[in-house]
Amino acid sequence: MQALILAGGSGTRFWPLSRRQRPKQLLALEGDRSLLQQTFDRLQPQVPATSVWVCTTRLLADQVRQQLPEVPAEQVLEEPEGRNTAAAIGWAVRSMPRAARNGVVAVLPADHRVSDAEGFRQRLQQAEEAVESQDLVMTLGIEPQRPETGYGYLELGEVLDQQSGLRKVVRFREKPDLETARRFVDSGRFLWNGGIFLFRGSTFLSLLAAHLPKLVEGLEEIAAEPNRLAEIYSRLPATSIDFGLMEKLEDIATLPLDCGWSDLGSWQALAEVLTADSQGNICRGDVFSEQASDNLLVADSGTIAIVGLEGLVVVRTGDTVLVAPKERSQEVREIVSQLRAAGRNELL
Amino acid sequence: MQALILAGGSGTRFWPLSRRQRPKQLLALEGDRSLLQQTFDRLQPQVPATSVWVCTTRLLADQVRQQLPEVPAEQVLEEPEGRNTAAAIGWAVRSMPRAARNGVVAVLPADHRVSDAEGFRQRLQQAEEAVESQDLVMTLGIEPQRPETGYGYLELGEVLDQQSGLRKVVRFREKPDLETARRFVDSGRFLWNGGIFLFRGSTFLSLLAAHLPKLVEGLEEIAAEPNRLAEIYSRLPATSIDFGLMEKLEDIATLPLDCGWSDLGSWQALAEVLTADSQGNICRGDVFSEQASDNLLVADSGTIAIVGLEGLVVVRTGDTVLVAPKERSQEVREIVSQLRAAGRNELL
Repeated sequence: MQALILAGGSGTRFWPLSRRQRPKQLLALEGDRSLLQQTFDRLQPQVPATSVWVCTTRLLADQVRQQLPEVPAEQVLEEPEGRNTAAAIGWAVRSMPRAARNGVVAVLPADHRVSDAEGFRQRLQQAEEAVESQDLVMTLGIEPQRPETGYGYLELGEVLDQQSGLRKVVRFREKPDLETARRFVDSGRFLWNGGIFLFRGSTFLSLLAAHLPKLVEGLEEIAAEPNRLAEIYSRLPATSIDFGLMEKLEDIATLPLDCGWSDLGSWQALAEVLTADSQGNICRGDVFSEQASDNLLVADSGTIAIVGLEGLVVVRTGDTVLVAPKERSQEVREIVSQLRAAGRNELL
Repeated sequence: MQALILAGGSGTRFWPLSRRQRPKQLLALEGDRSLLQQTFDRLQPQVPATSVWVCTTRLLADQVRQQLPEVPAEQVLEEPEGRNTAAAIGWAVRSMPRAARNGVVAVLPADHRVSDAEGFRQRLQQAEEAVESQDLVMTLGIEPQRPETGYGYLELGEVLDQQSGLRKVVRFREKPDLETARRFVDSGRFLWNGGIFLFRGSTFLSLLAAHLPKLVEGLEEIAAEPNRLAEIYSRLPATSIDFGLMEKLEDIATLPLDCGWSDLGSWQALAEVLTADSQGNICRGDVFSEQASDNLLVADSGTIAIVGLEGLVVVRTGDTVLVAPKERSQEVREIVSQLRAAGRNELL
């Protein structure tokens, strides 16, 4: 099996720690391995490093290679520009040697968290076997923990295998409103779409050719004239793998994943998976607190001192400090917008 | 008139901005002049720079001279060690040339704020005239604004001059409890003790000789053998001017001062005298806020970003950030204690 890790993201949810030059997947938010490295570690020993591919951007490729020295340097693919996930995955799969892309390919986001790596690998192996034996296109859906409105959902259909829980996916559902999300979760017939896909590479490219023919044309052009990559890539249709392909397929199967998954979508989400100290604070780096509890205190540089406060996120970097209530930490994007509007690129 | 500015303090109330090497009086908390410089400015043109004396510590003397280049360098006196205010004032007065110390001396703290400098100078001049004409020992008491329990009070007696409001001080009262403070303020017969004194230097030294004879003996020894300053100074009685002398005197007079005085005793006290922006925040330095109001945000170094919070103090320096509710900002001393206990001298 080949593993393709998508590591081109550039979100702002972990600002000020995450920056354009050092986005979330390159950060060690927990322990001393970055999320990218943890994604790689999670695959071991199931997928040897020589079968791991990473698709990222030119800005990040050197850091990716530094963080994953085991992965062959030429398997860290540098997108000339971001053209969304359909192009990224298509290009990466088409870049694999024929023997590799005729086998199973697992596509994995680089910036998610999984607490039960062993359970994850078991599911991945079951999915691999299902793809191998039945040539399915598969997604690993996440057992929903709450009526989350921030994720897409997979609507489940026919059970294909009672023992493993293999089921058909009837539909991809866009991010629902809260009422709909409650209904989804209560029904037991929905999983979160975690962006993990498995397929034979060759099957995937055939499906892509049927649904996004211009994309595959472009990929073949690139394969024929690799020195024209930047020029051709810039003209590839920019659409997501979900919207551009998966939602259009009749036959997708899924296995439910219940392994402590989190997409770590905010400082608050990070706080929820980390362990607090005896005062109820989660502290990273040099922190002094006085009658303060239930805070996430990240001193990436220098010292944080906090008195008598609860439920805050405080993140200090060498140039900045962010202070916000945990439950509003996703509004850091508004600060990032302000910085962008003010032309403060050095802080982005 | 000679003005003696006491600038040896080393408080922790403005940590992390204030440090042992850069205490409150040297900080520009408002505008770009430090509290020490503002104390000097406030005396102009009434007291020419050549009549200004500053008593400070060895650690701070160079910075004091840099901040007040107009004051003759030899009039910035360096205490070899802190021996409290009776010793500091006694030594400074005894160090003045005879002609100067036979005249009026005004003693002023270096770290207070006065918004109405013109009113302050008027009062100072009235006090000077009273000392000059009647050889009084005087203190300028502050019209109390609230039942403050953090200050000492002056209990007022006989009116000496109806027009100016010159009155006798019956007693110095220690910091009262809240009920007593309320009674004091309601009675209209109490002023805050702001630590501002005026007297003839020679009169002061005579009174000091009567009440603290060992102190004056030491001062005479120092005058005779200045090269033994450190050794003799270390044996001077360490007591405050209030406790060691003023509270024991029968005849002290006062004039009430109503000129926007604040001792700036905490970040909160500073916030109360500064003007907020349209969002209700007081911002210094590079600050970005999103739906946050009523905060004091001081970016001495780098950037502060705050989302959705109210009533906080956030102070970012090159090595530290403090986050506290405004009304608990005085508890910064607990953080300083923790740092001291942890041997983190570089942050003190």
